[in-house]
Amino acid sequence: MKTVSAYAATSATEPLTKTTITRRDVGPHDVAFDIHFAGICHSDIHTVRGEWGEPAYPVVPGHEIAGIVTEVGSEVSKYKVGDRVGVGCFVDSCRDCESCRAGEEQYCTGGGMVGTYNAVGRDGEPTQGGYSGAIVVDENYVLRIPDSVGLDEAAPLLCAGITTYSPLRHWNAGPGKKVAVIGLGGLGHLAVKLAAAMGAEVTVMSQSLKKMEDGIRLGASDYRATSDRATFKELHGRFDLIINTVSANLNLADYLNLLKRDGTLVELGMPEHPMQVPAGSLIFGRRSISGSLIGGIAETQEMLDFCAEHDVRPEIEVITPDYINEAYERTIASDVRYRFVIDTASLR
Amino acid sequence: MKTVSAYAATSATEPLTKTTITRRDVGPHDVAFDIHFAGICHSDIHTVRGEWGEPAYPVVPGHEIAGIVTEVGSEVSKYKVGDRVGVGCFVDSCRDCESCRAGEEQYCTGGGMVGTYNAVGRDGEPTQGGYSGAIVVDENYVLRIPDSVGLDEAAPLLCAGITTYSPLRHWNAGPGKKVAVIGLGGLGHLAVKLAAAMGAEVTVMSQSLKKMEDGIRLGASDYRATSDRATFKELHGRFDLIINTVSANLNLADYLNLLKRDGTLVELGMPEHPMQVPAGSLIFGRRSISGSLIGGIAETQEMLDFCAEHDVRPEIEVITPDYINEAYERTIASDVRYRFVIDTASLR
Repeated sequence: MKTVSAYAATSATEPLTKTTITRRDVGPHDVAFDIHFAGICHSDIHTVRGEWGEPAYPVVPGHEIAGIVTEVGSEVSKYKVGDRVGVGCFVDSCRDCESCRAGEEQYCTGGGMVGTYNAVGRDGEPTQGGYSGAIVVDENYVLRIPDSVGLDEAAPLLCAGITTYSPLRHWNAGPGKKVAVIGLGGLGHLAVKLAAAMGAEVTVMSQSLKKMEDGIRLGASDYRATSDRATFKELHGRFDLIINTVSANLNLADYLNLLKRDGTLVELGMPEHPMQVPAGSLIFGRRSISGSLIGGIAETQEMLDFCAEHDVRPEIEVITPDYINEAYERTIASDVRYRFVIDTASLR
Repeated sequence: MKTVSAYAATSATEPLTKTTITRRDVGPHDVAFDIHFAGICHSDIHTVRGEWGEPAYPVVPGHEIAGIVTEVGSEVSKYKVGDRVGVGCFVDSCRDCESCRAGEEQYCTGGGMVGTYNAVGRDGEPTQGGYSGAIVVDENYVLRIPDSVGLDEAAPLLCAGITTYSPLRHWNAGPGKKVAVIGLGGLGHLAVKLAAAMGAEVTVMSQSLKKMEDGIRLGASDYRATSDRATFKELHGRFDLIINTVSANLNLADYLNLLKRDGTLVELGMPEHPMQVPAGSLIFGRRSISGSLIGGIAETQEMLDFCAEHDVRPEIEVITPDYINEAYERTIASDVRYRFVIDTASLR
């Protein structure tokens, strides 16, 4: 076992503090790597603050993890020491259910995927995430980071990137398709870049026009304020696909009416209250509302390679670990363009 | 103009009474036919009672209409005198929008489809439905009833039949697919027959097991009571497709959890209140909730031909027009197996 420094939450109300955790010995199928960067995802905050149920404290958050391989197990074939690698939201799954066999491990029905933190691994030990100096993960749940993508930029792709890439692919965003992205934050700014890189025509829908210049620069051809009722009249029946990255409860009927016949609105965030969906806004136009959860390992690798090829990178603000608690407050206030990434050098 | 007898509602609270209405002269593209049978659809009741907004009284309901051609216009090529024909929920549409051009006239965005009753036709006159002796309709909105299908049995296919056929086809019900049908009423009993005829494995979900024998006879291989909580545990993750024919507000989260990954729940009815959909029940499994509205003219013809070929018929109770008001009460009480059809002989 190896001891590494980490930042952990010990309760729902205390700030995260520096601590040490242990990482398991490298098994035959394991890859050990030094963590260089870890992104801060809003779900880290929800989890440590108990907003999604009481977690098993202490919790070391972080599921956007990038680093360099330091050791591999005897049976490992995919990676070698020195490789640039990453880990996303899960580190294991049953490997046997229909979803796992289809490469959609995120929807594992054989006990569910094993979260990168706040879960229990195959060894019976709690999993701990990326706000730490190193990690040990089964090679089948490790991603290869293309040489042209910086490790700091790779980190947010492993959750925010795949969370937006997967539904864009699943619902066929591409040339001739009109895609709206609700919210221009950590997920939204990547959704805009990815959809534009896939060839779709992208509209950003944001509360105000404050970030309009950014949205256009990121690849949107249109940018609308949702605080302006005219938006909902003018865009009626416009879109093939709407990607909702906002976790607050919106008036969904307004947005569903912006879909064409057979269009789909995809929820990525988890609003606190059930969504209110008038059946008529689905029936008149055979519209759908769907949800999507990150992506499988194979698709995550596809996404990383796509980003390398199409020059898609998140916009990030790199911080040191002692700034994590302040970064949390700023994330909640949407005061970041567009993702905090922790440089974990001081934790190694 | 021709005068025919009809049953009309004159207010939201009065019973329907016998009256006379006029039908337009047969234009070059029109087909005139004597109505032999008209089905009673629950939406007839919603409309005349003002539950979907104040209609333009007097209203002659009926959009499940079957009869025999008595006259055709000079330009009509599809039908001739003596043909067995029908009309469903709409008698016109813009013919120019993307939906109309795609043969999905029910989703017409060029002003919307023209309802068979309680709408305004191209001639500026109010449309009046099938509880009457005859009707005049543009040939492009007339269906051909296969010889082997009785006119009385054909009537309910023109709304209840296509309303269930279209989503079953759109979401690929067929061999290897598990389909649940919520509710065994006018729509539900046809959904079961159609899905079984398409080769799907069908489960009925009904409040009680009261109609279980019927359900199995109609083609279901499983029949579950939704009043029994065990149903929702045992069927977890079971279905590719759930067809909801119940208009009451159900606890949709319960039903969404019965879907497999990528499964879809399709709403056919229009519950009074917005549906409550927890985002998690969509996100964890990439599930969808969708809606579907009747079907286009071409697909309605396809459905009639499918029913002829696969021996699918509605189960009906034939009544005379003077029984309409009582039939309404029994329809509301779900006291009909499974569709009332009016024999309109006395109105011709």
